[in-house]
Amino acid sequence: MQYQVDLNSDIGESYGAYTIGQDDEVMEFITSANIACGYHAGDHNIIHRTIDLAIKNNVAIGAHPGLQDLIGFGRRPMQISPEEVYQLTVYQIGAVQAFAQVKGHNLYHVKPHGALYNMAAKDTAIAKAIAQAVYDYNPNLILFGLANSELIRMGKEVGLNVANEVFADRTYQPDGSLTPRTSPNAMIHDTDEAVERVIRMVKENKIEAVDGTDISIIADTICIHGDGPKSLEFSRRLSHELKNQGISIQKREMHHG
Amino acid sequence: MQYQVDLNSDIGESYGAYTIGQDDEVMEFITSANIACGYHAGDHNIIHRTIDLAIKNNVAIGAHPGLQDLIGFGRRPMQISPEEVYQLTVYQIGAVQAFAQVKGHNLYHVKPHGALYNMAAKDTAIAKAIAQAVYDYNPNLILFGLANSELIRMGKEVGLNVANEVFADRTYQPDGSLTPRTSPNAMIHDTDEAVERVIRMVKENKIEAVDGTDISIIADTICIHGDGPKSLEFSRRLSHELKNQGISIQKREMHHG
Amino acid sequence: MQYQVDLNSDIGESYGAYTIGQDDEVMEFITSANIACGYHAGDHNIIHRTIDLAIKNNVAIGAHPGLQDLIGFGRRPMQISPEEVYQLTVYQIGAVQAFAQVKGHNLYHVKPHGALYNMAAKDTAIAKAIAQAVYDYNPNLILFGLANSELIRMGKEVGLNVANEVFADRTYQPDGSLTPRTSPNAMIHDTDEAVERVIRMVKENKIEAVDGTDISIIADTICIHGDGPKSLEFSRRLSHELKNQGISIQKREMHHG
Amino acid sequence: MQYQVDLNSDIGESYGAYTIGQDDEVMEFITSANIACGYHAGDHNIIHRTIDLAIKNNVAIGAHPGLQDLIGFGRRPMQISPEEVYQLTVYQIGAVQAFAQVKGHNLYHVKPHGALYNMAAKDTAIAKAIAQAVYDYNPNLILFGLANSELIRMGKEVGLNVANEVFADRTYQPDGSLTPRTSPNAMIHDTDEAVERVIRMVKENKIEAVDGTDISIIADTICIHGDGPKSLEFSRRLSHELKNQGISIQKREMHHG
Repeated sequence: MQYQVDLNSDIGESYGAYTIGQDDEVMEFITSANIACGYHAGDHNIIHRTIDLAIKNNVAIGAHPGLQDLIGFGRRPMQISPEEVYQLTVYQIGAVQAFAQVKGHNLYHVKPHGALYNMAAKDTAIAKAIAQAVYDYNPNLILFGLANSELIRMGKEVGLNVANEVFADRTYQPDGSLTPRTSPNAMIHDTDEAVERVIRMVKENKIEAVDGTDISIIADTICIHGDGPKSLEFSRRLSHELKNQGISIQKREMHHG
Repeated sequence: MQYQVDLNSDIGESYGAYTIGQDDEVMEFITSANIACGYHAGDHNIIHRTIDLAIKNNVAIGAHPGLQDLIGFGRRPMQISPEEVYQLTVYQIGAVQAFAQVKGHNLYHVKPHGALYNMAAKDTAIAKAIAQAVYDYNPNLILFGLANSELIRMGKEVGLNVANEVFADRTYQPDGSLTPRTSPNAMIHDTDEAVERVIRMVKENKIEAVDGTDISIIADTICIHGDGPKSLEFSRRLSHELKNQGISIQKREMHHG
Repeated sequence: MQYQVDLNSDIGESYGAYTIGQDDEVMEFITSANIACGYHAGDHNIIHRTIDLAIKNNVAIGAHPGLQDLIGFGRRPMQISPEEVYQLTVYQIGAVQAFAQVKGHNLYHVKPHGALYNMAAKDTAIAKAIAQAVYDYNPNLILFGLANSELIRMGKEVGLNVANEVFADRTYQPDGSLTPRTSPNAMIHDTDEAVERVIRMVKENKIEAVDGTDISIIADTICIHGDGPKSLEFSRRLSHELKNQGISIQKREMHHG
Repeated sequence: MQYQVDLNSDIGESYGAYTIGQDDEVMEFITSANIACGYHAGDHNIIHRTIDLAIKNNVAIGAHPGLQDLIGFGRRPMQISPEEVYQLTVYQIGAVQAFAQVKGHNLYHVKPHGALYNMAAKDTAIAKAIAQAVYDYNPNLILFGLANSELIRMGKEVGLNVANEVFADRTYQPDGSLTPRTSPNAMIHDTDEAVERVIRMVKENKIEAVDGTDISIIADTICIHGDGPKSLEFSRRLSHELKNQGISIQKREMHHG
């Protein structure tokens, strides 16, 4: 049996004169790019440049819609109706698709950002709104969401192909949710341990939760961070070890309905 | 011979809690809606509602991209490169198309707004950038621009179908350009005169310039204003008189390449 | 004994080309203006015009700081740290004071807006941050807050003069809080009843809660709405009845430390 | 005779999650900080932190108002009325003063940013609007402007103390204006030459223009850049050489009316 996994990263998060992240370096070893759409980060010039970079590196072009909160980088939860979540998702994926389209390419996947991602993991109505917006826009798009989340469940329910996202540097609760960052044991700091955990998720579909029990988890795609030299180094190491273990790193396959 | 003309209006210019214009009333007698895209006016909720209204009234759905200047309503000229104009056009038409698409419809035309419209009328590089962005996104879209302008010329050059826009309430210079609003004779205040001028533009392709000479002008589409009861009254009157004169009011035909 | 009360209204909420509210009319019978500061509504041009209007009508100039959320009009609760609430309060009151100052006047009071007002009514840390920001900026300023709220309590604690705000058209819970708008009995729709309730709050410092019991309430200032002809009519009626009852309508007195 | 000069830098230009510049390092050897006010860059959190840093380093706190154009970093000229320039200046200096005030300090100077700075150098009405806004807010503030510019002339005319700003790395035209960056000879690339030119401006009030003639120039303050290691190295070198030449580096003296 051939194991495979996708490596994704949040990318194109610069804005105007402001540069953030190391997009050029990260693009070299990921297979899916989640591109900021201008609401929490990114702008029309940045989206253009980021998509050029994705095409050059043969990386899947994805939209990374977020809350309309540039000063908060889309990380602050706010009260928002499912109806408005639907509309802001449609707006942002349409904008990113446009840049792909003028270059002869197409959008491949959608992953919500920051607070929207976290809200969609637990709030069924928010998750449904995002999934429905993606489906209505293009039912062939792949929806990325936290493994075991409401977003994955709603994505399947509306008829989308989904990708379960896992995190190499985070611990999991017995119910399959991520341990909140505010907890002391939220993060995996040891590189070897992080790599081993990922390999087990990919090959065995299992992860050890913080209480020591094993839980089921599907690892379709792994989130890679591009902020800082350590992140890059870890990502290179992870990429190398996955290949050593016979795990093919490749973008998700898009099924045309 | 059957005469015909399109009536267009700038629409969907509300924002958040702010309401502007009388979209419900205007939609009843126009054939093309230029929908604000969220840069100078409009937001994802407003675009959604406006497209629903356009569909209900069988009005052509158009994008009305503008400069990213909400506080100035996109009316302030600013220094901007043709490259950035290309990108902001792509972004905005992609966003509006997305809302049409999720409702089973499609974008029909594009008309730049405010300062961008005026810059595109005279600046060849800006005009080219807009026309190219529209063409690259979808070569079947119709480009609306000021009659006799650089935008119309560039639209044809890149291979787009174009619609020459005329104004019922404005006077023209001998070179075919609009008399600037700062001139005392810029506006036509008499309703009868305005109606007569439009009918002559449609039937004879001629308009009397401010120096008394006749100039050639093609009137594919007439701009209708929705701000205030007088505008609405004039528009109803104009619509009525056009039909009386045997001029069919209908949206432009989209040619598929 | 001489009864007195202040009438305040949220004002200057227009933005750029967008007009909201009937500021000219409302200014005629209020004594305190809460001026939007550019975050949730208002801009530098609007603040300038609104302060001119306040000065002309001898109305106290107040700052009405809100969350940085123009599209949501500052009405959407969002997760925000007390530290950031302190900073956004400082920023916004400084901006409004500047316009008063260049005209030879000064800021008189501060009332938080929308979601910030509601958060400050219940969340002690948010209330403390606002009160401390106002005090640090100018300890003579008067802090307006919901009667019986944490904001009033924290305002007193830091050493500010406070004004308890009551609402003519809202009902109260036995614990002194406002009945949420989502409840069927949240609003008082009968004008006579609303007027009577206000008079009782001013004269007897009592209001009947939704469970029929009387609760204590101090009515230093009454919130007047300027959105729509009905609001204006009610406000005129209320103003007239208050005077008839021997209640003097006047701005709060500023005490200089 | 004791020579003296001020070293100023544009600072606090980060925004939300975005970091720009090396404020900590630059603050160590400048005497005046021009702090972005939230329109073209900066936000309430950044202003707070930057003023703390200025106080710690005993650096004069200045406001650096710009055009409301975050995506363009305030560098794009736009059509704007002198009336609006007055209002946006008032708003921004009020906001920065507020942060100084809550920390027991006060604003010291004002220097317009980017396109606003350049417009104010040549456009008398824009220059007058800025100068008048600063004077009306606080006549003791010092106005920083390009040496020989309209802004300096208007500052004096309204009654402000002014500081003529010079650039170490730029060449000058025979009329005293800066050579536009688009010209091949706009920049001084040789460090020794740049340092020598500055010393001559401070000591002799003279600079050699691009045509080889000497022109008069007053060098009250020198603009220091903080973007990149080279800028910092040059600034340290310049600071060292100025002291070696017996030139005292100190903030401008504020005169109280």
